[in-house]
Amino acid sequence: MPELRKDPVTREWVIMATERGRRPCDFLHQVATTRRGGKEGCPFCPGNEHMTPPEVLAFRGPDSPPNGQGWWVRVVPNKYPALAVEGNLGKTGRGMYDIMNGVGAHEVIIESPDHETSLATLPVKQVEDVLWAYRARYLDLKQDPRLKYILFFRNHGQVAGASLEHPHSQLIATPMVPADISDELEGAELYEQYHDRCVYCDILRQELSEEERVVAESAHFLAFEPFASKYPFETWILPKRHHGSSAGVTSEEQTALAEMLKEVLLRVGTCLNDPPYNYSLHTAPCDIRDEHRWHWHLEIMPRLTIAAGFEMGTGIYINVTPPEQAAAHLREVKLEVEQLA
Amino acid sequence: MPELRKDPVTREWVIMATERGRRPCDFLHQVATTRRGGKEGCPFCPGNEHMTPPEVLAFRGPDSPPNGQGWWVRVVPNKYPALAVEGNLGKTGRGMYDIMNGVGAHEVIIESPDHETSLATLPVKQVEDVLWAYRARYLDLKQDPRLKYILFFRNHGQVAGASLEHPHSQLIATPMVPADISDELEGAELYEQYHDRCVYCDILRQELSEEERVVAESAHFLAFEPFASKYPFETWILPKRHHGSSAGVTSEEQTALAEMLKEVLLRVGTCLNDPPYNYSLHTAPCDIRDEHRWHWHLEIMPRLTIAAGFEMGTGIYINVTPPEQAAAHLREVKLEVEQLA
Repeated sequence: MPELRKDPVTREWVIMATERGRRPCDFLHQVATTRRGGKEGCPFCPGNEHMTPPEVLAFRGPDSPPNGQGWWVRVVPNKYPALAVEGNLGKTGRGMYDIMNGVGAHEVIIESPDHETSLATLPVKQVEDVLWAYRARYLDLKQDPRLKYILFFRNHGQVAGASLEHPHSQLIATPMVPADISDELEGAELYEQYHDRCVYCDILRQELSEEERVVAESAHFLAFEPFASKYPFETWILPKRHHGSSAGVTSEEQTALAEMLKEVLLRVGTCLNDPPYNYSLHTAPCDIRDEHRWHWHLEIMPRLTIAAGFEMGTGIYINVTPPEQAAAHLREVKLEVEQLA
Repeated sequence: MPELRKDPVTREWVIMATERGRRPCDFLHQVATTRRGGKEGCPFCPGNEHMTPPEVLAFRGPDSPPNGQGWWVRVVPNKYPALAVEGNLGKTGRGMYDIMNGVGAHEVIIESPDHETSLATLPVKQVEDVLWAYRARYLDLKQDPRLKYILFFRNHGQVAGASLEHPHSQLIATPMVPADISDELEGAELYEQYHDRCVYCDILRQELSEEERVVAESAHFLAFEPFASKYPFETWILPKRHHGSSAGVTSEEQTALAEMLKEVLLRVGTCLNDPPYNYSLHTAPCDIRDEHRWHWHLEIMPRLTIAAGFEMGTGIYINVTPPEQAAAHLREVKLEVEQLA
């Protein structure tokens, strides 16, 4: 019999097909990531800096001028932004409907000058610099009182919505706290009211004691398949130290996060033949009064199945690979020491 | 500047790319529906009735025996059900986590003996019989006290999650009210508390007076693009008469719904070159105390764009075709009288 599992934070139910769990090989026909476009004319490649709006941040050599070559991480406004950085909120009504101007920010974090690489195969130091770029942009945008939330996310592969193959992440800052983040915050508060404990800290404890959903563990982070995973091979990276904002990491934690992120992406990529995936960084809202009310984390979602009419009509997901099985597959992946460096 | 629009029921914001709205031709490369499998070995074709579990309902000629040929609409349990019809709920905890047995129902409504047709091209009378089959299954399953919600939905095309091409809808009955339905119910209640009116009735009035988002109108139904559409060309069919349950339709309304559904699917199919789509029927929960607290409707969602990391991390959708433009395109489609019959 299938099992219904409840997400302890959002309180959403997931249908877990526990009996005939799909294995990695069952997904192989779906994961061939069509490469879209090549290096030619790539706006993110060195030498093409003029093809993007002027950079807002770059890690580059001391002698290299802005918007020229010589960078290793570069952040630029999205040329086709979902939300515009200029203007005021202008909230109005139209009959019974509510409208706001599309004020916000939409930026691209170019993760490497090398078109052919990916976040999983970059050196740890480079992954760490990408994370430092996230942090720098977060701290800068957080000062803008119009912005209420900043989401960092990554689309890998065409099926996951990537329109350019050059390795990059994105950020979108919104003038309201998004519904899904509000739901998480509300769920965490409800849990805390009831138990006087952080729900994510409790998840951490239970996963460490049960072990069967753990993918990898280090001194500072746990990577695991959530008990009520919506997607096959969904993987979370949770910091062991309770803290609301990913911008509050220590230097040592940032290195450890880069190591863990790279390891998880390598395990997922090796196990599932470079599948399309999305990840997003769930950090506290910009103007949260008490950052300790939240516990930041990273959610990685391989795109192996299609949300169809049932999921779209109910919000209930059907997961065809129980997290215990997914974790076992991911743990089995053999990685060489040099791959992890 | 893009515009943020708030859904008046769920109170979710949608980013509307109002400036460079995508036209139907911009989606054409994405909509080629790969046909999967043919008639051979199709478990839903006449003569292959033994390939499905025994039927739970069929509209068939007086001399045709159950599970043989001679039917025009046939309902069977799904051979690979997401939820199982036997067993009790068995709610338990596992540490901090909550679990329930996957009790429910999962059935397939085979819409025609003809493998090559689709709901849009079937005669109105046949579409109406499909809707009567929905109603009969709804009324039967509603008697099971374990079931709290019954969703009827349709996946058309591989991109929309259809695994068999023979025209069919599905139903899944769940042992809890799904999160998205609860959100709608809660939003409708909040609106009613504030305004003392049904939010869907107000939407109906505003859409009829503004006209620009209307796709089609008849004596009993309005088809329109919702103000805060999440998806390009998202279309709702809303009954003019306030009622919570789609099972409460009169015979005249059922005919009118079949006509409207067929017309909308024809307009969407013609305008967008037979795109993949999902639809779902939002009717009241099984044990709602007062059916008048709800206003049933049908939501049709063409699958023209991909939900990526931002949508999955926030729940905020970016819609690249404003509903006013989508409605104009759908209204422009010229249909012949014989197509609509």
